Amino acid sequence: MSLAASDPSFDTQVFRFAQRMGRLKASAIREILKVTAMPDVISFAGGLPAPELFPVEQFAKACQDVLANDGPAALQYSVTEGYPPLREWVCEYLGRVNNIQCTPDQVLIISGSQQGLDLIGKVLLDPGDPVIIENPAYLGAIQAFDAYQAEYINVATDDQGVITSDLIRVLREAKRKPKLLYLVPNFQNPSGITLSLQRRKDVVAIAAEYGIPIFEDDPYGRLRYSGEALPSLTAIARSRNCVYMSTVSKTIAPGMRVAWLVILERDVFERVVPAKQAADLHTSSFTQRAVYEYTRQPGVFEAHIAEMLPVYARRRDLMLESLEHFMPSGSSWTHPDGGLFLWARVPEEVDTEELLSLASRSKVAFVPGGPFWVNRVVRNTMRLNFSNASDDMIVEGIKRLGESVRAYMAGAR
Amino acid sequence: MSLAASDPSFDTQVFRFAQRMGRLKASAIREILKVTAMPDVISFAGGLPAPELFPVEQFAKACQDVLANDGPAALQYSVTEGYPPLREWVCEYLGRVNNIQCTPDQVLIISGSQQGLDLIGKVLLDPGDPVIIENPAYLGAIQAFDAYQAEYINVATDDQGVITSDLIRVLREAKRKPKLLYLVPNFQNPSGITLSLQRRKDVVAIAAEYGIPIFEDDPYGRLRYSGEALPSLTAIARSRNCVYMSTVSKTIAPGMRVAWLVILERDVFERVVPAKQAADLHTSSFTQRAVYEYTRQPGVFEAHIAEMLPVYARRRDLMLESLEHFMPSGSSWTHPDGGLFLWARVPEEVDTEELLSLASRSKVAFVPGGPFWVNRVVRNTMRLNFSNASDDMIVEGIKRLGESVRAYMAGAR
Repeated sequence: MSLAASDPSFDTQVFRFAQRMGRLKASAIREILKVTAMPDVISFAGGLPAPELFPVEQFAKACQDVLANDGPAALQYSVTEGYPPLREWVCEYLGRVNNIQCTPDQVLIISGSQQGLDLIGKVLLDPGDPVIIENPAYLGAIQAFDAYQAEYINVATDDQGVITSDLIRVLREAKRKPKLLYLVPNFQNPSGITLSLQRRKDVVAIAAEYGIPIFEDDPYGRLRYSGEALPSLTAIARSRNCVYMSTVSKTIAPGMRVAWLVILERDVFERVVPAKQAADLHTSSFTQRAVYEYTRQPGVFEAHIAEMLPVYARRRDLMLESLEHFMPSGSSWTHPDGGLFLWARVPEEVDTEELLSLASRSKVAFVPGGPFWVNRVVRNTMRLNFSNASDDMIVEGIKRLGESVRAYMAGAR
Repeated sequence: MSLAASDPSFDTQVFRFAQRMGRLKASAIREILKVTAMPDVISFAGGLPAPELFPVEQFAKACQDVLANDGPAALQYSVTEGYPPLREWVCEYLGRVNNIQCTPDQVLIISGSQQGLDLIGKVLLDPGDPVIIENPAYLGAIQAFDAYQAEYINVATDDQGVITSDLIRVLREAKRKPKLLYLVPNFQNPSGITLSLQRRKDVVAIAAEYGIPIFEDDPYGRLRYSGEALPSLTAIARSRNCVYMSTVSKTIAPGMRVAWLVILERDVFERVVPAKQAADLHTSSFTQRAVYEYTRQPGVFEAHIAEMLPVYARRRDLMLESLEHFMPSGSSWTHPDGGLFLWARVPEEVDTEELLSLASRSKVAFVPGGPFWVNRVVRNTMRLNFSNASDDMIVEGIKRLGESVRAYMAGAR
């Protein structure tokens, strides 16, 4: 039997990955997940949280409590909108940590954030509809919106996130009214950049002026290692013209596939629910209850986050120091305040897609930046994940990466 | 806070969809919501398996074993295609119980059968594409295919399932080549009818002759209470032109949302995987492993099925006897050999949507048959679920239903 996904040889993966690079969109995440499955590669390619930090024991306790106390209901079909106590908890939680005011009937539990991207795309986008996105942008969103034949309008970003003058420009120039402004304001994937407070206020005001709904995707917001927490766009807007999405994938664990959409506009909510129902009836009754039960253990969830933060912060710092130490001059990178990724730019002459095959021989992996760019060809960028490798592997991996860049520049391919 | 849909004892899915499709009157919906709120209603309306039969303890043991032995991997992201050992088990299982020969790289684990309907629709159907379906047909399939603007060609059925001469007729008359022949050959939802062996052979031959892919949806196949097991269409066809789908929702429990597609045609498989990835990345790593672990406990799964069968068989028999006893002459119903449903026809003058409001006053509920009919208006049918109510409730509920029909015919509304 052959299951390519379970035991792939690294070279095959890189080959297939590189082969698809020209039109990587639909397959990118899949390939990346496969690369990360390899046993002895130092991978900065995935978007994986650190599995050694997962709260396995407390989650196991939550599962046992759910099955012991409410087993039949937890294993039965349930309603499309989600488990009501979990929806109530989401409201309490978002009010507490994001200052978002919502009610349970505005919360839809979904099977991971990817499903939220798909459902919002399905409901709000018709073929050819423009979507404004950051550049570089999150691949999973592009993949989801591509299925509905969205067109992308890219807005320029700098180290403070979306450049608001450029946002105004693209809105003025748009031939067709954009249907969505899709943003990852905290520690964006792939760039690691955070939208500044002033820019948040400006973006909200501009979106309101032009009547463009904001789709705020916030998977990483709780993973802040430095700087001050900033209010979400949805909290600033205090308007119904926002969809907010977050998940337990980065705070508890991704394997359960539990996330939520907060949809303030009633008629949008009422269109998304039937789409969710047609897509998978409802998210697992069992994992919803297990997540809810986990959050109910007093202090456990917040203590867990508090435990993760210094580990991730140290990994980020180690990666930044190692880049400083090992990368050739002419390279630069972002300095994220949180999340899982940073974004590096190597000298102009380096094509990171080619570099990947060189680096793979040294058993280090990253994601070439090309696929994240929308309507542009940029060859010398890459995304580096710092959450999934140990301290030693981060230092060793960046050392190998730096050597690979130098070797490439010296003529090796 | 009001979460009207939180009571899963009623098939709100069906009703909401029917309402949206204009297939149920607003007054019927109001009636249904009212009935939903009643704690003591006897409902034959849902499609729910009996929760008291769920293998809660063994499933809890499986969850604990997964988390104890492999916790971090079970809570991490995983590959889109599904957990490899579960895919291997699916092949072994389908070979053993359905005589389907497939390999793990033809198996895609999905988040419940509804997702399979959605993914196949997304990949194979363009707007206006004809899909051949039974009449009455499964509403979840119509709901999924509607999202891709399918057109339906209905093929007539009798108590042996699809009438093959009618299948040939619709194929000959089709102005545009149908993209799919969608069938639920075992104990169909809503009718409870099973496609006979000869018809299976004929359907497979006809589909091959006309080059129409068969989508075989088999959620209930293991729930056979009488008659002999029949080979699946996919096993008969031994061709790549079939997609087969089944699930653990009716054999273990639906709350985990674990099902699978077997896609024999490689290029279709390779188009469905990216669609699955765009939809939700992958099905829960944890529930996949828990289901796999459950099936590994020696003898447990088959013993569980063996334990369920006589309970469901008795409920079916009780419902059949009660119908015989309490329904007015001029009524008829199917005699399913398995599954969860039977289908009743009351005298022509009875509109079952109107009947529902009368029946609800006697605290008994069912699904009016209207929404299940494609391209036809039929008012005097209903779907009755026999798996979810206790023996006493079945007898009492059918007694009340019979009285309601008589009252309706006597002029009460």
